[in-house]
Amino acid sequence: MINIPIDKESTKLIYTKYDKNKLIKKEINSVEEFLNDREESNVRWLDVVGLSDEKILQDICDKFFIHPLVVEDLLDMEQTPKVEDYEESLFIIAKNIILEDDLLQEEQIAFMLYKDKLLSFRFKDTGIFDGIKSRLRDGSTLRKNNPDDLLYALLDITVDKYFVVMEDLGDRLDDLQDETLENPDKELLEKVYLLKRDLISIRNILWPMRNTVSSLSKNEYEIINGNTIYYFRDIYDHIIQIIEINETYREIASSMLEIYLSSIGNKTNEVMKILTVFSSIFIPLTFIAGVYGMNFRYMPELYWKYSYPSFWIISIITTIYMLRFFKKKGWFE
Amino acid sequence: MINIPIDKESTKLIYTKYDKNKLIKKEINSVEEFLNDREESNVRWLDVVGLSDEKILQDICDKFFIHPLVVEDLLDMEQTPKVEDYEESLFIIAKNIILEDDLLQEEQIAFMLYKDKLLSFRFKDTGIFDGIKSRLRDGSTLRKNNPDDLLYALLDITVDKYFVVMEDLGDRLDDLQDETLENPDKELLEKVYLLKRDLISIRNILWPMRNTVSSLSKNEYEIINGNTIYYFRDIYDHIIQIIEINETYREIASSMLEIYLSSIGNKTNEVMKILTVFSSIFIPLTFIAGVYGMNFRYMPELYWKYSYPSFWIISIITTIYMLRFFKKKGWFE
Amino acid sequence: MINIPIDKESTKLIYTKYDKNKLIKKEINSVEEFLNDREESNVRWLDVVGLSDEKILQDICDKFFIHPLVVEDLLDMEQTPKVEDYEESLFIIAKNIILEDDLLQEEQIAFMLYKDKLLSFRFKDTGIFDGIKSRLRDGSTLRKNNPDDLLYALLDITVDKYFVVMEDLGDRLDDLQDETLENPDKELLEKVYLLKRDLISIRNILWPMRNTVSSLSKNEYEIINGNTIYYFRDIYDHIIQIIEINETYREIASSMLEIYLSSIGNKTNEVMKILTVFSSIFIPLTFIAGVYGMNFRYMPELYWKYSYPSFWIISIITTIYMLRFFKKKGWFE
Amino acid sequence: MINIPIDKESTKLIYTKYDKNKLIKKEINSVEEFLNDREESNVRWLDVVGLSDEKILQDICDKFFIHPLVVEDLLDMEQTPKVEDYEESLFIIAKNIILEDDLLQEEQIAFMLYKDKLLSFRFKDTGIFDGIKSRLRDGSTLRKNNPDDLLYALLDITVDKYFVVMEDLGDRLDDLQDETLENPDKELLEKVYLLKRDLISIRNILWPMRNTVSSLSKNEYEIINGNTIYYFRDIYDHIIQIIEINETYREIASSMLEIYLSSIGNKTNEVMKILTVFSSIFIPLTFIAGVYGMNFRYMPELYWKYSYPSFWIISIITTIYMLRFFKKKGWFE
Amino acid sequence: MINIPIDKESTKLIYTKYDKNKLIKKEINSVEEFLNDREESNVRWLDVVGLSDEKILQDICDKFFIHPLVVEDLLDMEQTPKVEDYEESLFIIAKNIILEDDLLQEEQIAFMLYKDKLLSFRFKDTGIFDGIKSRLRDGSTLRKNNPDDLLYALLDITVDKYFVVMEDLGDRLDDLQDETLENPDKELLEKVYLLKRDLISIRNILWPMRNTVSSLSKNEYEIINGNTIYYFRDIYDHIIQIIEINETYREIASSMLEIYLSSIGNKTNEVMKILTVFSSIFIPLTFIAGVYGMNFRYMPELYWKYSYPSFWIISIITTIYMLRFFKKKGWFE
Repeated sequence: MINIPIDKESTKLIYTKYDKNKLIKKEINSVEEFLNDREESNVRWLDVVGLSDEKILQDICDKFFIHPLVVEDLLDMEQTPKVEDYEESLFIIAKNIILEDDLLQEEQIAFMLYKDKLLSFRFKDTGIFDGIKSRLRDGSTLRKNNPDDLLYALLDITVDKYFVVMEDLGDRLDDLQDETLENPDKELLEKVYLLKRDLISIRNILWPMRNTVSSLSKNEYEIINGNTIYYFRDIYDHIIQIIEINETYREIASSMLEIYLSSIGNKTNEVMKILTVFSSIFIPLTFIAGVYGMNFRYMPELYWKYSYPSFWIISIITTIYMLRFFKKKGWFE
Repeated sequence: MINIPIDKESTKLIYTKYDKNKLIKKEINSVEEFLNDREESNVRWLDVVGLSDEKILQDICDKFFIHPLVVEDLLDMEQTPKVEDYEESLFIIAKNIILEDDLLQEEQIAFMLYKDKLLSFRFKDTGIFDGIKSRLRDGSTLRKNNPDDLLYALLDITVDKYFVVMEDLGDRLDDLQDETLENPDKELLEKVYLLKRDLISIRNILWPMRNTVSSLSKNEYEIINGNTIYYFRDIYDHIIQIIEINETYREIASSMLEIYLSSIGNKTNEVMKILTVFSSIFIPLTFIAGVYGMNFRYMPELYWKYSYPSFWIISIITTIYMLRFFKKKGWFE
Repeated sequence: MINIPIDKESTKLIYTKYDKNKLIKKEINSVEEFLNDREESNVRWLDVVGLSDEKILQDICDKFFIHPLVVEDLLDMEQTPKVEDYEESLFIIAKNIILEDDLLQEEQIAFMLYKDKLLSFRFKDTGIFDGIKSRLRDGSTLRKNNPDDLLYALLDITVDKYFVVMEDLGDRLDDLQDETLENPDKELLEKVYLLKRDLISIRNILWPMRNTVSSLSKNEYEIINGNTIYYFRDIYDHIIQIIEINETYREIASSMLEIYLSSIGNKTNEVMKILTVFSSIFIPLTFIAGVYGMNFRYMPELYWKYSYPSFWIISIITTIYMLRFFKKKGWFE
Repeated sequence: MINIPIDKESTKLIYTKYDKNKLIKKEINSVEEFLNDREESNVRWLDVVGLSDEKILQDICDKFFIHPLVVEDLLDMEQTPKVEDYEESLFIIAKNIILEDDLLQEEQIAFMLYKDKLLSFRFKDTGIFDGIKSRLRDGSTLRKNNPDDLLYALLDITVDKYFVVMEDLGDRLDDLQDETLENPDKELLEKVYLLKRDLISIRNILWPMRNTVSSLSKNEYEIINGNTIYYFRDIYDHIIQIIEINETYREIASSMLEIYLSSIGNKTNEVMKILTVFSSIFIPLTFIAGVYGMNFRYMPELYWKYSYPSFWIISIITTIYMLRFFKKKGWFE
Repeated sequence: MINIPIDKESTKLIYTKYDKNKLIKKEINSVEEFLNDREESNVRWLDVVGLSDEKILQDICDKFFIHPLVVEDLLDMEQTPKVEDYEESLFIIAKNIILEDDLLQEEQIAFMLYKDKLLSFRFKDTGIFDGIKSRLRDGSTLRKNNPDDLLYALLDITVDKYFVVMEDLGDRLDDLQDETLENPDKELLEKVYLLKRDLISIRNILWPMRNTVSSLSKNEYEIINGNTIYYFRDIYDHIIQIIEINETYREIASSMLEIYLSSIGNKTNEVMKILTVFSSIFIPLTFIAGVYGMNFRYMPELYWKYSYPSFWIISIITTIYMLRFFKKKGWFE
């Protein structure tokens, strides 16, 4: 249901390596450059952007001894987030949501975490990691740390994007709420439906994301330092928060539909009342007028002098009586 | 969805220390005063109110070796309640709900619990801890105890506020219930919707609060005495009770919306009946009157002497027949 | 939501002690009498009825070293059922439901179970334990047993009261069901709503009761004999059964509301059909009659000899045609 | 909700004993006969049918040292299915459903399983075990086995009856489905409601049956051979399958009610359209006819030669215009 | 609910055996041929297609010492997916879904996995394994592996078929969504209902499939190599993904029904408005025309010169007034 961008970009390999003292970032042309670089460093990060060039990818996977199933998952844009433990490495799939022109788009990012390096795979350069790259350049505390801390930073920035989307949806929900209570028209129905569908779709990503980060934060994998666990727990808290917001929004959207249905009932009721008031008052009077429009030769009232004023008096009395009857029923405020 | 007060107060440090024999409470200007006070005491409590002065906060966090992630959480007003164990200390986030002019507001309170001291962080002085402060001054049994007992007392007073809010909502629900059954009008719909939204929002705070207190009451953390566990279990019971009340209220509000929808259906049905009775009786009669209002030259009835009285007799009989037909259908009580 | 009786009775202490051979039951004035009675016996039971006299209660709690939180719970009429283990003793809160004039009332009963004695605390003498008292007097097998067997007997009799209430609600449900299917009127809506609300409220008591009895039946507490476990398991089965009945009733009540809504739709549809049949037949005919009631000088039909009979023939044919049209649409059975 | 047959049959004791070589089946008059029969045999099965004679039952329970709570359960027709372990024996309650004239009836069967014998207790002889009895007579593999295999065979035949009932309900559901989509009338509503109620009631039996068989198939009880476990697992699979079918049927029935509601909305909409088309076309025309039926002396049109044909032309044009307006709105197919 | 093809095919035995170097595939006539073939090989696979010939099946089961319950399950077309461990072998039932002419059909496939061989049982040759057979012929890596890898490959291809079905249903859902929002007519209701029913039915297969594959991927069975576990985990991920898609589709279909109901409400409301506008304007005017069509002798207005133009002026003013009234109510856009 969430739109997935179809056009893949050509493959770029961005190689970043750093420790406390230095940071080197360059685009490389083949994995060899990465593998041949034997200089010691805290963290070596290969960011593979654009997965269209299957040859390069196959090359990477061969060189890093990546399990064939992982390769398959890497190239499939419709994976669900998950962690898989392959002894020497950890394979992680994460998802990001982007809202472009009120259209949900998802971005899939895969990671291979090793003791001394991190590989990341993205289909497209959406600029999601730019913040991290500048933090590294500016020499943040991140520079002192290990690949798992880098993974944390990248996942954290990914999860933070959800808040932006949820806030946007929250604003839309607030607008719809006011409309529902004040002026429930036809277009509203479509808007609520589309919002609800978006919320359902987001939840489908959030739950596996939650499981993914949960298992990262549980000291299950020896590749992740006990220290970094705290940080993953923090991401976990964020996801739980987003899930809760999502749940709340969905329930509110559901309530809105219920309210909408009742509102239409109310409106129809009001229309009916107007019709009934008009009909109930004038139909009997029209009948009486019809009676004295008959052409029977023998109709004594026709020749009576006060017939016509009597007719009006009766009409007015009936009308007043009817209006009071409807008033008593509470049809007028 | 719950409103969060935006304006932060300037930072105040309120330092309380007590044991069985004495109680000292004063406002201090810097953390140094707290740290330099080496005099022995059962409990030392630093209540930090107003978190606008990030310098002081940073100072506190540095002096107490607080984890950077905790600092981040402290300053974020939209945290979900949780406990985090940091070996030497326990970090707790709790939430309180206030109902101001029928508007839900939440108050976030953070605690750092150590073996010998307690830090609390609040964005605003809402007077929530005043009861505890006076109990300490009056020399309650609290004075004999440890920091974890103080934490219990503070959490207990926080959770007790929920009951006040739920009671208020319960009263609103009772009012709405009577209105729904007696006079379901348009405004009611908005009220039920808003009440339901509030209940959904409160639940979102209650669940993490439950988990938070649950883990405090489970002997998981060595910083909390086995004895105090019983007390946390008591708070836990209270939260469970509030969750149950909330759940019940939500279900009742949902039932109310169902009833409302059926009620409108009933009302529309009644309006339709009135219209149908009037129309069904008078439309055929008007037709007959119309017939004898025609100007055809050759219409034998027009010249018949008893036509007019016959017309009335037929009209009356038809009307009676119709009324009995509707009565048989149960349209009149 | 469930009504709680407000007026407390004055405190009575009923002291029962028995073994295989003898049974002594008397009202005593102070706890001293109970404590001073050093004569050996299987079971010593102190039934405290009416909790208005806080002095006596405080006295009891002091003498039996009851935890201050327990005392607080004892005096609070709105506790949720629970078990709490206090090494030497077990604290249990149970709830009973009474249906007075179709109004749900709950009765809270607290127990303190020791190896050699049982304390029970009730707000009011509703006669719930009378059956047990007469069974003891008549020398049942109960006399041979321990305090935990007495607790079983008292809880069993409490839980059995639920069946009485559920049966009553089941009868009401059956009545409503027939009404819904045969004659869904306005009052029915209120009745179904109130029944559903009652069922929701009862469930709120049943779940903690279930947890309470479940932990009693799980060999968790050493104060309860392995033998008596079987008996608590039996109570547990009963509660599960009541929960199931409750759940079924609630689902049926929900279905009923759905059916009701559809029924109103059906009824409105039927009303509309009658209106439409009458209108569709007579409105065109009235138009034609109106045409020939016009006073144009040049209207050839007026002077034609067969106009009037032709008018009637056309009217009748049209009517027949319309009736067949509606019949074909299935509007008449 | 499920009907329970009230009339109990008089008690019959049917004693069956067999091993590979022989099978003896006879009705006996007292338990003594069973107990006194000391001849060796694989399996000795006492089938107690009709539980009205409490004396015989009490006798059986005394002779077999059956726990008093079990006796109580045996005589209560409204037990929920369960297993209870009594060291020397296993007490099992199972339920069967019978559909008589579209009315659900439940049959309760209790078993006491010992290492060397099986007791079964039934309120009425519904012929449910006849299949087993003939299989024993025909010398099936069953004859080689132990009492737990006999229990399996009896439970298996009981659970198989559920499939018969579910199939019947499935047929009813299919019929209702066609009716809902083609011709949703009033009776349908009642049928769907009753079907849904039946499904809810059946689920209430299935869940405890599932738990019962699940614990039998889990090697929890030493009285059951590891070998027979496989067989109970098979029954377990069957129950899971029935639960799933039940769940599906209930969801489909719920969808049907939603569809029904929308269908009525559609039908009312259609009725309204017919009314509106007739009214909107003829009401304005009738007004015009009414105008020229007025008796004002000074109405120039009355004397104009082409008034009357003009009137008709205008009427026809208006009608055509209106019909096109409604056609454009999509009111006619 | 899902259609099961009734006609069974005649039994064919397809015997495939392979290792790295060679692949032999032939149809055999009896199990003997399989058993007598003592030549060493990695994998020996007997694919039994068409289960109508019970004699051959019985023969197979006897020769392979298959448990009688398994035989029973094999021949029953309505099994739920499951794994059963029989020490020497593993019995697996899997299900495939096929969508033929918008009709769901399920295909049941059973496997017996041994250390050195695999048996598969299918009711019909639907060509589901053709992909595997060609992969084996083309000498894929599969040829190097064990029977559990073959089982993986066969299950994987089975599960992949679900995606095809879900995609098809997703397309139908998208079409229905557009129709619901733009033109909610009667046929739509049936389509949404049938789609929802299909989704419910598919879920009933997916859940046991999930449990089946889950237990295969959990290192529970020693017959499955630790290495192959990764692969089963992959299938597990796929099933989870399909379950999520199914869940999302069902929720969206439910939302659609809600939207539909509201849409009909909206449409009825609009029809009512048209009727009410026409009636409210013309009914009073017709009354006035009726009044001056009366034949009273003494009606001064009849003789007044400006009566007729006054009548028209009043009519037009009233109409304008009414139109503005309805416009103010927002009945026209």
